[in-house]
Amino acid sequence: MTQKYYEDFDIGFNFKTLSITVTETHVVNWAGLTMDFYPLHMDSEYCAKTVFKERIAHGPLIFGMAVGMVGLAKVEGSSIIAWMGVDKMRMLAPVKFGDTITVHVEVVERKETSKPSQGLQTWRYTIKNQRDEAVMVLDMKFLMHRKVANA
Amino acid sequence: MTQKYYEDFDIGFNFKTLSITVTETHVVNWAGLTMDFYPLHMDSEYCAKTVFKERIAHGPLIFGMAVGMVGLAKVEGSSIIAWMGVDKMRMLAPVKFGDTITVHVEVVERKETSKPSQGLQTWRYTIKNQRDEAVMVLDMKFLMHRKVANA
Amino acid sequence: MTQKYYEDFDIGFNFKTLSITVTETHVVNWAGLTMDFYPLHMDSEYCAKTVFKERIAHGPLIFGMAVGMVGLAKVEGSSIIAWMGVDKMRMLAPVKFGDTITVHVEVVERKETSKPSQGLQTWRYTIKNQRDEAVMVLDMKFLMHRKVANA
Amino acid sequence: MTQKYYEDFDIGFNFKTLSITVTETHVVNWAGLTMDFYPLHMDSEYCAKTVFKERIAHGPLIFGMAVGMVGLAKVEGSSIIAWMGVDKMRMLAPVKFGDTITVHVEVVERKETSKPSQGLQTWRYTIKNQRDEAVMVLDMKFLMHRKVANA
Amino acid sequence: MTQKYYEDFDIGFNFKTLSITVTETHVVNWAGLTMDFYPLHMDSEYCAKTVFKERIAHGPLIFGMAVGMVGLAKVEGSSIIAWMGVDKMRMLAPVKFGDTITVHVEVVERKETSKPSQGLQTWRYTIKNQRDEAVMVLDMKFLMHRKVANA
Amino acid sequence: MTQKYYEDFDIGFNFKTLSITVTETHVVNWAGLTMDFYPLHMDSEYCAKTVFKERIAHGPLIFGMAVGMVGLAKVEGSSIIAWMGVDKMRMLAPVKFGDTITVHVEVVERKETSKPSQGLQTWRYTIKNQRDEAVMVLDMKFLMHRKVANA
Repeated sequence: MTQKYYEDFDIGFNFKTLSITVTETHVVNWAGLTMDFYPLHMDSEYCAKTVFKERIAHGPLIFGMAVGMVGLAKVEGSSIIAWMGVDKMRMLAPVKFGDTITVHVEVVERKETSKPSQGLQTWRYTIKNQRDEAVMVLDMKFLMHRKVANA
Repeated sequence: MTQKYYEDFDIGFNFKTLSITVTETHVVNWAGLTMDFYPLHMDSEYCAKTVFKERIAHGPLIFGMAVGMVGLAKVEGSSIIAWMGVDKMRMLAPVKFGDTITVHVEVVERKETSKPSQGLQTWRYTIKNQRDEAVMVLDMKFLMHRKVANA
Repeated sequence: MTQKYYEDFDIGFNFKTLSITVTETHVVNWAGLTMDFYPLHMDSEYCAKTVFKERIAHGPLIFGMAVGMVGLAKVEGSSIIAWMGVDKMRMLAPVKFGDTITVHVEVVERKETSKPSQGLQTWRYTIKNQRDEAVMVLDMKFLMHRKVANA
Repeated sequence: MTQKYYEDFDIGFNFKTLSITVTETHVVNWAGLTMDFYPLHMDSEYCAKTVFKERIAHGPLIFGMAVGMVGLAKVEGSSIIAWMGVDKMRMLAPVKFGDTITVHVEVVERKETSKPSQGLQTWRYTIKNQRDEAVMVLDMKFLMHRKVANA
Repeated sequence: MTQKYYEDFDIGFNFKTLSITVTETHVVNWAGLTMDFYPLHMDSEYCAKTVFKERIAHGPLIFGMAVGMVGLAKVEGSSIIAWMGVDKMRMLAPVKFGDTITVHVEVVERKETSKPSQGLQTWRYTIKNQRDEAVMVLDMKFLMHRKVANA
Repeated sequence: MTQKYYEDFDIGFNFKTLSITVTETHVVNWAGLTMDFYPLHMDSEYCAKTVFKERIAHGPLIFGMAVGMVGLAKVEGSSIIAWMGVDKMRMLAPVKFGDTITVHVEVVERKETSKPSQGLQTWRYTIKNQRDEAVMVLDMKFLMHRKVANA
């Protein structure tokens, strides 16, 4: 991976990822892997009586895919020391089977730490569907290498 | 599912889930489903040179499994109207292949909304390994039915 | 799991499980895992010429799912010492992709053994589709803890 | 498939299948597909305290694999009209990760029906491990084409 | 497996395999296992603007399935010492979700080696869809046991 | 993807991909997806008696993974019009469970076509293990956009 640093990502820096169509296969495989068989994802008879009318994708599946899709973009290079966590993950709209999602990433916060070699950044992931509607938003927190200390 | 309400879960209410051993299979299947092939999970040569010495599980996999494991416990009954999101997800320690995780859940916050039929609760999930070490912590936010309005 | 005993389940005791929609994904994954590529499940051209007109789910998949679905209900608590086997498994009607199945369980037989701490029970699983038609029936045999000997 | 008939399989006719090593991957994938996360298969800490000491394969997985393995042998040709069901499935010994199973098949019963074109046969599947120990036995019931009526 | 030899397969010898319907599940599982998320297979919005209009199967998936399908036919018996490789693999037409493929195999080349116990054969695999259109062609190279040296 | 052209890749141009550890999970999932249960990959008892001593990965799995790994590197940008096929795929050494593979890519041939907008290139993929031994080699054929015609 290209060497990149904290300093390479200003607040406001942004990009978007490739797009992936979310399928019944993703949802059934997800359910099995994470043990989440909630009827909204797995029981089409139940869903027919809800406001959604049909099975929808698990929210955490959309999060998991978003993390992978941003990784495939390889924009962060080898800047990241560690993934610190996630804040403010919110589900905004359902993802139906056949919807195609894209992750829009923007750097929204950066902060030097007491160690001159490290900085913290918050990257906001906004996941949108094929109608450009936001379906999920979340803030990823990364600990990054600083260039100055590595120069 | 048993009918349960916001009022059934006081702050401090807690329980733990079944336990699951995290395996190489979980990690390889996760990588494929979420498109996350970061070397810390997929390249044992790379890992041998890190502080971890060996491949470790993806953090979001631990989150995904925790959501499923809490669902299997069925403690929430049909109290939940909607999953609102997640706050303060933090990875605290690596999960290695063969580690066995359990989710410890505690209600840490509850708040009535302007609608008498709805309330918000925060359930803290602390995921621990077989040595009782916390490996991940996160706050799940649920919108719940209130009993009073449904009586 | 809650401690339960042989004595907690009288003949006639019954319950039903959650419901799951059987999908093309279940069938393709099943075929790969169990090595069963019989054309009735995997070749839509072949199926078009049969009485079924379309691919149908493997019978043993319905059995496998039924075992899991009854386990998710957790009604048996920790009463079970061992799964002894299955009798009289019969396929009654085809399960098509998109059908939603539910397991109806009834205790149909119980018998004390020569050991005062153990008893045998037969639980009949009737798997029904969304039109309430029975698609499979089978008798599960369990060896259970008896309460009297554990008091 | 070769055309074969009821008359081609006498009582006592027997063969064995290819052999397959049962792995952690089979068990984790099975659990997800059939929703069976019983600790004897998924929780190595729990298993360490049992007589088995380690995780073991699900019994129904061994059944599912046996059905597929017999199908791969293609001995039955196109003799079968329908799979009628299973009788007397019994788990005889645990299958551990890394054990290699083979199915030994023997025709144990055959019976003409009132229709001259159809007959019923019972094929006993004895599944053995690499130490030639029987781990499961079961009786498969098939409805078959009779040659006389098709001549 | 039946003992077979180089001498059992003349140039012109041919057979066809069972048929399998290629599904969305095959494609999503393939993408995850081989890390190939090219939009022609995974992004239905992108595909709608291409000449194909919809997602199509990965070419290497068709190759992988063809190898398996020929193996299931078990025509080669135990004649093969080693798989030497592949030549002239060409994608001729797209495979869409729901298409059903069959492999037509023909021995197109055989050559004795300096070792009297070994011979080389080229088996041409032509993969056709349900409209009898060739979608892929490739030449498999096998090293085989010769009968003369084993007599 | 970045716009790239035939002209951007001279003969001799080369790069290598990320590395992936090939696991039992890859092999079991591959077998199921492609229906290839040859004992060299699935039967550890059989393998113990071969020169390999243990189960090895399917050759086509290594090919499939190589295609995906080169795609993840995204070096080709949007230069490719179509994947034409593969030549001279040869298995050179076994890949065992736990081996880590990397694809080394080199442009070995390029040729203009009669259409000024298109050119053909051959990219040689040499797949190496963690001991820098070549395990597979193959020639990928691509049809590419030419810059001159698109200027």
